[in-house]
Amino acid sequence: MWSFQVEARAGRARAGRLVTPHGVVETPAFMPVGTAGVVKALTRAQLEDMGAQIQLANTYHLMLRPGDERIARLGGLHGFTGWSRPFLTDSGGYQVFSLTALRRLTEEGVTFKSHLDGSTHVLSPERSMAVQMNLGADVIMAFDECPPYPAPREVVDEATARTTRWARRSQAAHARPDQWLFGIVQGGVHLDLRERSARELMLLDLPGYAVGGLSVGEPKDDLRAVLAHLDPLLPEHKPRYLMGVGTPEDIFDGVARGIDMFDCVLPTRNGRNGQLFTSVGRLSIRNARFADDPRPPDPACQCYTCRSTSRAYLRHLHMAGEITAAVLMTLHNLAYYLDTLRRIRQHIVLARFEEFRQETLRSLAAPAAEGQGG
Amino acid sequence: MWSFQVEARAGRARAGRLVTPHGVVETPAFMPVGTAGVVKALTRAQLEDMGAQIQLANTYHLMLRPGDERIARLGGLHGFTGWSRPFLTDSGGYQVFSLTALRRLTEEGVTFKSHLDGSTHVLSPERSMAVQMNLGADVIMAFDECPPYPAPREVVDEATARTTRWARRSQAAHARPDQWLFGIVQGGVHLDLRERSARELMLLDLPGYAVGGLSVGEPKDDLRAVLAHLDPLLPEHKPRYLMGVGTPEDIFDGVARGIDMFDCVLPTRNGRNGQLFTSVGRLSIRNARFADDPRPPDPACQCYTCRSTSRAYLRHLHMAGEITAAVLMTLHNLAYYLDTLRRIRQHIVLARFEEFRQETLRSLAAPAAEGQGG
Repeated sequence: MWSFQVEARAGRARAGRLVTPHGVVETPAFMPVGTAGVVKALTRAQLEDMGAQIQLANTYHLMLRPGDERIARLGGLHGFTGWSRPFLTDSGGYQVFSLTALRRLTEEGVTFKSHLDGSTHVLSPERSMAVQMNLGADVIMAFDECPPYPAPREVVDEATARTTRWARRSQAAHARPDQWLFGIVQGGVHLDLRERSARELMLLDLPGYAVGGLSVGEPKDDLRAVLAHLDPLLPEHKPRYLMGVGTPEDIFDGVARGIDMFDCVLPTRNGRNGQLFTSVGRLSIRNARFADDPRPPDPACQCYTCRSTSRAYLRHLHMAGEITAAVLMTLHNLAYYLDTLRRIRQHIVLARFEEFRQETLRSLAAPAAEGQGG
Repeated sequence: MWSFQVEARAGRARAGRLVTPHGVVETPAFMPVGTAGVVKALTRAQLEDMGAQIQLANTYHLMLRPGDERIARLGGLHGFTGWSRPFLTDSGGYQVFSLTALRRLTEEGVTFKSHLDGSTHVLSPERSMAVQMNLGADVIMAFDECPPYPAPREVVDEATARTTRWARRSQAAHARPDQWLFGIVQGGVHLDLRERSARELMLLDLPGYAVGGLSVGEPKDDLRAVLAHLDPLLPEHKPRYLMGVGTPEDIFDGVARGIDMFDCVLPTRNGRNGQLFTSVGRLSIRNARFADDPRPPDPACQCYTCRSTSRAYLRHLHMAGEITAAVLMTLHNLAYYLDTLRRIRQHIVLARFEEFRQETLRSLAAPAAEGQGG
């Protein structure tokens, strides 16, 4: 039912194939974020049409609303949402630490108040597993403690050690063989803590490993240093997932260090805010110079938005506060990400990953089509 | 280039065919409202896929933002929005009287302040025609004065007389033979004023006539009385448009009195608010009894939403404030309206309009699927 194979390499970058009970994910893969069981502003058909192979959903949000037991009754995330391709759920740890106030952390778990109605809930390794088994995603995550950034080293040290203990308890509590449970390497920006975390988690022989606690405000150099340090440590034959990352630049950095899976709210959130990623640079649709621009947002893009919409029309819809603007720009940004990942994979297979990386990052750093004639 | 033909009748109801430079509109037709050049929450493809044959856009909103001259430079409404089927624009009169404060009305026209930024603008018959020629819709409307309801009879009388004078000036100022200019019958709930308005406007021999100033708060009996009174007066061989109406019940009333065209924000606005029209009654998706309901919103509907979404999932998306909920419910409600109008037309052709009307209104009055088992 399950397998992961690396099919090609270019330097440390790898093109892989993750086979799940709900279909294949070609890696490196970007996973659109469907926080509440939907990618904000999109229909399932739009997400399918752009070729998304896996979707992420948030345990924290779904356990609070509409409730994981309700979702289980309605056929799990697949039955509930109708998305028939693979799902990944996070553990809830990151949201509990970033979204909720008034939380109490003990070795047992975290007691917190819902950001929706203030009601009290507990997340622990056992509870996170129960919820994620109810949700029924293909890939699920061990419950971890994600320390804030910056934090004193001793805080990160203790969170990292607890993450290992919680990973053991997660593994013991997990009882669905149709799901793969990934461990999460913590350790902040401290390379020795990262290494200890990776080595401890590898003893559990989990089917995949994630790098958590990055893209939380640390300098880019720290992100790159952690990835460089972990790359030779993590198992070569298992999938590697860099959580919550990131910009296209970050994703190229991750791929270059052997990362296979990514997720980030950036393309969807920026889309709703009128910030577009294009082959001619980053583009803010609010800019007045687009008011009479009949060109598509990205002349090199084949997505529905770029096939059907001018910059002028898109700017008008955005300025008028039309929901359709959020739909169209979310659609383009996700198409840009998915297309970029597909092309990354092709160029790994062709052993031309570095050339493609330079070329793409150059185009993305272009002055947002400013210099081009109208 | 242009024609209108009545192809079948059932009682006073008629099945017609309006041929425009941008395609055919089979009547009776419902025109989705694309206020700012987009049907709120939908993409053009979604509107095309559900078989909408004509779209309405608002002169008032578009002249203020993004500006009619800009739209003209970008190819008119068709070029600007990419919608290649027919458009109808209203005259701006209704919005000026309902949306703006601080307006000054003279025989020349209306001076008003934009609801967007308070800037001062003028709409007159000549200016409305200039704007509508810039927008380039297929069907455009004469500039009218829409009195509030209730209003003293003398106020309605004067507004009605002015509407005739403004219709003459609209006709004189209109200079695009690829557009059809419709007149608007006013007169409030006063049958003699309605009759005078219709007779005066018919002297202009315009290619179509609208009934304006209804569905503004008057009792349903008044709406029906006006339609009954105007039916034998309006030309048999020209299209008739009932502006801003309405509920499915209202639309059946209109069709039964020979109306060919309708528009209303009800399906789109209600969709965004979680109010659905279905073959098993009106349904408020917020209702807690839908939280575990795996059935589609409307079991008899073939729209994308009903093919892909359960009531439970739709309720969850709505309660979570997800944009996608607005998309899916707008899509269903418009599909319901368009499908109902298509079936009305079929049943006119089959001379079974009254039976279909009774059957549909009975289903719509059902207790919103409340009695059905889960």
